Amino acid sequence: MLDPVLIPKSGVTREELASRAACLGNHLKKANIPLAVVGYPPDLYYFTGSIQLGYALVTWEGETIYLVKKDPERARIESPLEKVIPYRRFSEIKDAVRGLFGKIPETFTLSLDVVPTNLFLRFKDVLDRARIEDDSAFIRSCRMIKSPYEVENIRQGIKIYDAVLRRVSDLLKEGMTEAEAEGALVFEMRRHGHQGLVRMRGWDQEGIDGYLYAGRSAAVPSFLDAPLGGAGMTPAVAIAGGNHRIGRNEPIVFDASPGVNGYVSDQTRTMVFGQLSEKLENAYRVAVEMVQRFEAEAKPGDLCGDWFDTMEKMAARAGLRDHFMGFEDKRARFVGHGIGLELNEWPVLGKGLTWRLDPGMVVAVEPKMVFPEAGVVGIENDYLITETGVARLSVTDDALIVL
Amino acid sequence: MLDPVLIPKSGVTREELASRAACLGNHLKKANIPLAVVGYPPDLYYFTGSIQLGYALVTWEGETIYLVKKDPERARIESPLEKVIPYRRFSEIKDAVRGLFGKIPETFTLSLDVVPTNLFLRFKDVLDRARIEDDSAFIRSCRMIKSPYEVENIRQGIKIYDAVLRRVSDLLKEGMTEAEAEGALVFEMRRHGHQGLVRMRGWDQEGIDGYLYAGRSAAVPSFLDAPLGGAGMTPAVAIAGGNHRIGRNEPIVFDASPGVNGYVSDQTRTMVFGQLSEKLENAYRVAVEMVQRFEAEAKPGDLCGDWFDTMEKMAARAGLRDHFMGFEDKRARFVGHGIGLELNEWPVLGKGLTWRLDPGMVVAVEPKMVFPEAGVVGIENDYLITETGVARLSVTDDALIVL
Repeated sequence: MLDPVLIPKSGVTREELASRAACLGNHLKKANIPLAVVGYPPDLYYFTGSIQLGYALVTWEGETIYLVKKDPERARIESPLEKVIPYRRFSEIKDAVRGLFGKIPETFTLSLDVVPTNLFLRFKDVLDRARIEDDSAFIRSCRMIKSPYEVENIRQGIKIYDAVLRRVSDLLKEGMTEAEAEGALVFEMRRHGHQGLVRMRGWDQEGIDGYLYAGRSAAVPSFLDAPLGGAGMTPAVAIAGGNHRIGRNEPIVFDASPGVNGYVSDQTRTMVFGQLSEKLENAYRVAVEMVQRFEAEAKPGDLCGDWFDTMEKMAARAGLRDHFMGFEDKRARFVGHGIGLELNEWPVLGKGLTWRLDPGMVVAVEPKMVFPEAGVVGIENDYLITETGVARLSVTDDALIVL
Repeated sequence: MLDPVLIPKSGVTREELASRAACLGNHLKKANIPLAVVGYPPDLYYFTGSIQLGYALVTWEGETIYLVKKDPERARIESPLEKVIPYRRFSEIKDAVRGLFGKIPETFTLSLDVVPTNLFLRFKDVLDRARIEDDSAFIRSCRMIKSPYEVENIRQGIKIYDAVLRRVSDLLKEGMTEAEAEGALVFEMRRHGHQGLVRMRGWDQEGIDGYLYAGRSAAVPSFLDAPLGGAGMTPAVAIAGGNHRIGRNEPIVFDASPGVNGYVSDQTRTMVFGQLSEKLENAYRVAVEMVQRFEAEAKPGDLCGDWFDTMEKMAARAGLRDHFMGFEDKRARFVGHGIGLELNEWPVLGKGLTWRLDPGMVVAVEPKMVFPEAGVVGIENDYLITETGVARLSVTDDALIVL
């Protein structure tokens, strides 16, 4: 018997899980599909409160059954769901589906953006060659609107970032390598309660707890779907802090995502030992003006793409167009994104994107200015969209930090 | 222009990449398939020396073309390959394939264990509905046999673990939470050159740099395909160190995978503030006897499954059968596994598995004894299979560490 006292709790309630399942159920009904089979860890956690090895069966009526292969005893302690059912063989999934509907439905869904092909084929096989549709847009749409419980967890991560920032003067030293400085701040995040893991959706993206880079090294582009990448320590990682030693008067960027109960925050501040050049200081000021404008003016109904355009225009007016979110042809086409159980959630505040801001969305807005020969300056704050505008979640002030 | 001096180098040579492509090419020839399309980051890195966003086209003749969407300039600096070709639209992959063969081949391969279904369908579409076979067994078989360059990188990771172990008396304190202790040792790994990331194959597995847990908390089972999981800080992570405070006389297990140039090591030692009970000390001694027996007797040609049986028998003789690799019905069915660019490589030293040890394999052997009411003791060492036996790569000695 597993002693429940050993298992950490997330505080999510059965009622909250029911309302999430109802959201997915509504999408399923509209698509006339009776069943979603959810196994991708962040999605599974969203619907069950647990990420043990297994699947959540979510019906169009909003009922959820959690099938668990490993470890069922733990899953039962973690999940507030009523139906947590152990299984051993893949074929038992069929029995569970038949139990729900009296037969195997003609169509069901998987998240085809992340489910590997072999697993897709295995499901096709075990569920009588039923048609399989993609539910990733359904699930990502539900996850886009955060509950108060979810916002509170993101707030906890935001406070961890702030607690770490209060200690940067003690922890960072001129001449440290980026990697060592990054390691020191990530350790400090952990000491303040960071869960120790950051998730990104996509088979070719990789979650990193915190990125710290300085000077020219920060401007090195990478595979990452982000404005910055960083040199990294090796081509095998090719992002985040590397072997560059932090010098005097060069901008240091710390972009980090402390997480609590799965929910990650995402914030950036710029720091310097000494003083930035006038050009860089001015660029930082423009970036701060961008987040402050968003904070003052954004409201439900705004087009996400318009906010990209607005900020791009502000950059252009300040003579920074070729440095906004990258340099020359290496510029990212977005200036913000949703955060939650993954770092790259919906909506995306990107060129031409037609999502509208909606109450309950939580977005990270991250204007960054890239100068290949000097480095990067920028800021990133987290905001909750409210009924009337936005609420700033970030508690760290927006000023450049002189170490 | 990206300044090459900013980009870290891995030291892999064009010749080594050619011999890797030749290995995959031989598998393709045997299967009568002209082309493999490789995009999964660790596999892409294996064939190109770079993990920028894109695909390696590997032909049955062992030719490799590296198509790069983001960032091509960086890829050209990182990869020793001759043909590094930028692309922007997915359809250009078709042009590249036609360029290689004069037409689209009837069959090609992807790694269907990891390629998401939507991407599979997109490839199917763009390459004229050609047949797509799974190459994951080909690639994992090639990767199973390490070159001297690869072994040398694993050795560097092993040395990092040893350097961290030399500092545990300074870094760990009684009463620290597991999470804080884990964070301190992972930071120390980073300071000694750990790349800051550990990869595991599988959509439902997650790489963690180092696991530290103590007492009963270490015995908490999880979703992870591993003998241990740990309580973790939250059900959203559900593995690794949690909020338990390290007490006197309880076993502390530190299982970590420092990596260099993509290649991870994997080692475990058991530590204690004070003294272990006789039962636990005896169980640790039995685990050490297991790795020492492997070290003395393992040789090419041995069946992997036999080594699991041998160790299970040793456990049974010592009265530890129900504690070997887990407890009761929660026991893992393997005692070792390959390591390399991922933590869970081939071969697996597991019940009934028919791989034979072969020169060039590098395996982590990890006998662990689990006592739900007291904690876990165990050891994990890394070994290179040689022409005549095994070479111990681990440099830390096998003794229990009293803090």
